[in-house]
Amino acid sequence: MTLVDLSVRDILTAFSSPDPTPGGGSASALASAVGASLLTMVASLPKTRSGSDAERGSLAAVMPALTEVRAQLADAIDADTAAYDGVVAAYKLAKSTDEEKSARSAAIQRALRTATDVPLTIMRLSARALDAGGVVAAHGNRSATSDIGVAIALLRAGLEGARLNVDINVGSIKDAEYTARVAEEVERLAAEAAASAAAASQSLTLGTRA
Amino acid sequence: MTLVDLSVRDILTAFSSPDPTPGGGSASALASAVGASLLTMVASLPKTRSGSDAERGSLAAVMPALTEVRAQLADAIDADTAAYDGVVAAYKLAKSTDEEKSARSAAIQRALRTATDVPLTIMRLSARALDAGGVVAAHGNRSATSDIGVAIALLRAGLEGARLNVDINVGSIKDAEYTARVAEEVERLAAEAAASAAAASQSLTLGTRA
Repeated sequence: MTLVDLSVRDILTAFSSPDPTPGGGSASALASAVGASLLTMVASLPKTRSGSDAERGSLAAVMPALTEVRAQLADAIDADTAAYDGVVAAYKLAKSTDEEKSARSAAIQRALRTATDVPLTIMRLSARALDAGGVVAAHGNRSATSDIGVAIALLRAGLEGARLNVDINVGSIKDAEYTARVAEEVERLAAEAAASAAAASQSLTLGTRA
Repeated sequence: MTLVDLSVRDILTAFSSPDPTPGGGSASALASAVGASLLTMVASLPKTRSGSDAERGSLAAVMPALTEVRAQLADAIDADTAAYDGVVAAYKLAKSTDEEKSARSAAIQRALRTATDVPLTIMRLSARALDAGGVVAAHGNRSATSDIGVAIALLRAGLEGARLNVDINVGSIKDAEYTARVAEEVERLAAEAAASAAAASQSLTLGTRA
């Protein structure tokens, strides 16, 4: 049974349980998936902001990216839980002999890398959706302004939540070259996302005032 | 079929569809419900930050509020969609005669008030969860720091998204006394939530550094 096949009621129960998973990484992926879904909704409304063909074309052009991002974020809900379960399993490996200790350390490092890569992917997907959100905010139906605003808030929260999960896992990884590369990408994605969200919010405000 | 009985996969599809509902209000309730669930998870972990009985008592004391808030936020996912469907239905009422016009206007005003009250309730519930989040951040297991951080980010986004839905609906309500009361409560809840989130984030940072 995957998490995305659970009912909304049951996934809330799963998040509430003291079991180690599902946790914040899966929750972040879910929030961003809802945000990407709301942007898809607005981009596919029959009415656009001005009703021009060019505007309809701009919205149609971001639909494939939004659809793909939403599907990958939905997959990430389960992938993050699987990755963290892998970390827990690696820490439980035997450590009686030197050989076991060495195998366990290597397994923990491999598992932590996966548990870093998954939320890093959630950050990338959220940043990509926020970028598309700028187009939706500029050209989407004005009556959906609050839906676009909610989408942006959820995608920012999903990206911020995923970042907390990257940071906590990468902190135990010993490969300095990998950790430096991750830290650099995290900063870049956070900056890009903040710029996209600010641009989208400005388009929404202008739209409301116009 | 209620939204909370849909699978996660299917509610994402529903949010993506060009149908008017479910929209941003239900999405905000879902985000806050996930946030409240993660706080419940951390508050019910066997390990607390220091392991003291007093600390276990503090966490146990916020559990009933978190459980209630989570259940009410889950209900709000469907309530917001029902409220907005009511607005759409009221706008579709006949308006040929003066009598019909007057009945339609009254129905629209009633529906808009419900569509304002539901996201206002989502704001109240999110603020209450963020207040409990301060206790969880101060006393919860340090290994769950990222889960608490994600919970705070989702509750803030849920509250912000709910506020956008209050604002857009209250803007068409003609009862000035009601709209003033709502505007005042919205400001108060936003300020309370920002203070709670800041206090919780500070506890988390201190915890990480200690």
